[in-house]
Amino acid sequence: MSSARALYLAKWVVPITRPPFRQGGIVVEGERIVAVGGEAELRAQFPEAAVRDFGEAALLPGLVNVHAHLELTALRGMLEDLPFVKWLAALTRLREGLSAEDVRESARAGVLEAIRSGQTTIVDVGATGAGFDALCEGGTRGLFFQEVFGLRPEDAEESLRGLIERLQPLRAHPCAFTRVGVGISPHAPYTVSARLFLRTVEYARAHALPLCVHIAESHAEVEFVRHGRGDFARIYERRGLLWRAPGVSPIRYLHDLGVLAARPLLVHGVHMDEEDIALIAHSGAAIAHCPKSNAKLGHGVAPLPEWVRAGIAVGVGTDSVASNNACDLLEEARFGLLMQRAHRASPTLLSAEAMLRLLTLGGARALSLETRIGSLEPGKEADFIVVDLSGAHVQPVDDPVTAIVFSARASDVCFTAVGGRVLFDGASVTTLDEERVRARLREIRARLPHRDALLGD
Amino acid sequence: MSSARALYLAKWVVPITRPPFRQGGIVVEGERIVAVGGEAELRAQFPEAAVRDFGEAALLPGLVNVHAHLELTALRGMLEDLPFVKWLAALTRLREGLSAEDVRESARAGVLEAIRSGQTTIVDVGATGAGFDALCEGGTRGLFFQEVFGLRPEDAEESLRGLIERLQPLRAHPCAFTRVGVGISPHAPYTVSARLFLRTVEYARAHALPLCVHIAESHAEVEFVRHGRGDFARIYERRGLLWRAPGVSPIRYLHDLGVLAARPLLVHGVHMDEEDIALIAHSGAAIAHCPKSNAKLGHGVAPLPEWVRAGIAVGVGTDSVASNNACDLLEEARFGLLMQRAHRASPTLLSAEAMLRLLTLGGARALSLETRIGSLEPGKEADFIVVDLSGAHVQPVDDPVTAIVFSARASDVCFTAVGGRVLFDGASVTTLDEERVRARLREIRARLPHRDALLGD
Repeated sequence: MSSARALYLAKWVVPITRPPFRQGGIVVEGERIVAVGGEAELRAQFPEAAVRDFGEAALLPGLVNVHAHLELTALRGMLEDLPFVKWLAALTRLREGLSAEDVRESARAGVLEAIRSGQTTIVDVGATGAGFDALCEGGTRGLFFQEVFGLRPEDAEESLRGLIERLQPLRAHPCAFTRVGVGISPHAPYTVSARLFLRTVEYARAHALPLCVHIAESHAEVEFVRHGRGDFARIYERRGLLWRAPGVSPIRYLHDLGVLAARPLLVHGVHMDEEDIALIAHSGAAIAHCPKSNAKLGHGVAPLPEWVRAGIAVGVGTDSVASNNACDLLEEARFGLLMQRAHRASPTLLSAEAMLRLLTLGGARALSLETRIGSLEPGKEADFIVVDLSGAHVQPVDDPVTAIVFSARASDVCFTAVGGRVLFDGASVTTLDEERVRARLREIRARLPHRDALLGD
Repeated sequence: MSSARALYLAKWVVPITRPPFRQGGIVVEGERIVAVGGEAELRAQFPEAAVRDFGEAALLPGLVNVHAHLELTALRGMLEDLPFVKWLAALTRLREGLSAEDVRESARAGVLEAIRSGQTTIVDVGATGAGFDALCEGGTRGLFFQEVFGLRPEDAEESLRGLIERLQPLRAHPCAFTRVGVGISPHAPYTVSARLFLRTVEYARAHALPLCVHIAESHAEVEFVRHGRGDFARIYERRGLLWRAPGVSPIRYLHDLGVLAARPLLVHGVHMDEEDIALIAHSGAAIAHCPKSNAKLGHGVAPLPEWVRAGIAVGVGTDSVASNNACDLLEEARFGLLMQRAHRASPTLLSAEAMLRLLTLGGARALSLETRIGSLEPGKEADFIVVDLSGAHVQPVDDPVTAIVFSARASDVCFTAVGGRVLFDGASVTTLDEERVRARLREIRARLPHRDALLGD
């Protein structure tokens, strides 16, 4: 039995695992890529394939967004110019004002934006399963981390029970066996007790579930973990919570708790020293790098070049649009590179090629999916995108990678496919009702309190 | 005699000189704005006006790009990952390979991109009048600085004569009396002798011509001016040129030469101390801030917040696409803000509002055009743009300024008008033949040497 084959052609092909080449494409059969090569060769080898030629464009693997909070899409642009701890508090209040249905629409809107931006795999961290459902519905590949919080050590068992309850329906969902994985995310050292960290890691290991932790993001967090002081310590004190600062770096703290040994996906990691980096490299944990969110919230510049040099698996994430305010990995990569060069005054640090690798195979590796996605190779999932390079803001082009990373915008993405299925065809997203989502998003926003109301006590 | 009036409406109006408001617009008569206000009020006051309603969009003053090199558009993406001095050398070689006609097409392509990105005033610095012609042809407002170089003091008179010769036809051009001003740009301290600086400044003052200087851009330049060493000193030595380092900062050097007193537009200014900033503030000189170019070339992070605090007139420039590689002021502002916050680890530094002001009224002030452009006010030139805010990557919106600076892309610009004339209507640029320009750009690029050939020697 031979299933239908499709030949996708473009002026440039960027397989990632080998150098870009001109005038070629890929052949897709069912959910897989079956061939990658020059146009003449592919046409000769697959004469029966249906042909689609994108012309002045680049065909490349789909982008992997290793950190998002889809639930928060409705809150875009509401929380500007706030110090981190105030931002967190206002975000929490706003989040509490959203109904379960609001959160579902919000997550859908996030997936919609991601698909339009060429993201084929999205790692979402959320308090409800809304992100999981939206990823299933939207048709992307993904990994959903169910978040768990719990500051009081004595509540750890109850928190764990709640977590398990939330996980059950997700893990039983048909989608969890194919496209969208499920994992656990104990949120961060200032919202999760050491005991809850231990219990969740134990549970994750017993059930072979991926782990994700927000770590070493803010200066406030470092102060809290190292010295037991600062904004978070004051919040603990005010709420009558006990906190014995471990007196080490946040990364060392995770290491000492045995969290690193479970090879979590570490989100942010802005504040790290050499020893921290060595601990991560040794553990095999991966990092989700979110340069724009880190910048906007004033956390600083993460040691990306050092991570890469240490051989750590690094992917790039957009974080939520409540702190970015865009879900656009091309811009994320561009800013990530430029910020490093500016901050360290080095003109040769990183390269377009290095950044595009992080967006694709790097992200795949951070999720241990590098044998299935992240490059255009026969046998891999047919997760691919097309970036139009004909625009006045991109031309002239002789190196597609430079053009994609330094000149193209997410709006130049004109085709997104996951497992061979077309999710975006340049005009509209095929899996979600864009008009309805947009209208609902506006209704939700109109009901939310104004910024001033949020910031008053 | 009453000339035709047009009423432009949008869901948001961002006048800059007063807070944004909903559901309003502007009335244009001839080349001027005659009214700004709410929809009902304007419809009642101007019942005969032709109405165009942009719906879910923001109407704002056109963006002012205070630093570009339009001639170099054909070189986009050719000079990646090079230290500054090597980059300059390779750029110079490439530039020499372009014919006069190539340079004209290249400049046209640059104007085209700028118009599509919502730039209504463009400051161009070029070796030939190609940028001037392209600005005239494209229909934007602008200021063209004729560049002058001359390392040997004994050649200063000849350089000046050459400059004057090049200036004559530009200053006599009808366009120079209306939309596109003409000025002089002695390039930089490492390419212009002190004597040539003195002579050009003298000439500029005598003829009331604006001045522009690239200054304090690179560490290499600071080394050269302060200590007479580094890459530029080696080049001087190799070429048998005499250089007595003034032993001061580049800004102090300009001050001591009397250049600052002529109130030039200072481009870059990455490397400045407090005294330099005070000198500039005192002189009334303005600054063209190019954060992405400064980052990409590894120069560092300019002291933008200090400039603003000192009351210096600052605009934002894209620099050339040979170092950026985009001519997109929205991204430039976004990146400029994020880089400051990341570099200094401050979450409240600058704001979307502050950045949008720099892109409009700030740029206008840097060019001493603030009484004519930079805001939506009755009596000002009808230089305005419309940014579509309906995209999935922008919604939901309740503050248009936050949406424009943090979420919108240049591709969301759907209308650009200068002096009431429509230059871009969302589909195509009305003043230039886009297809032809693009085709010519490709031909030019195909003839240029490959990167490896450039970097040999």
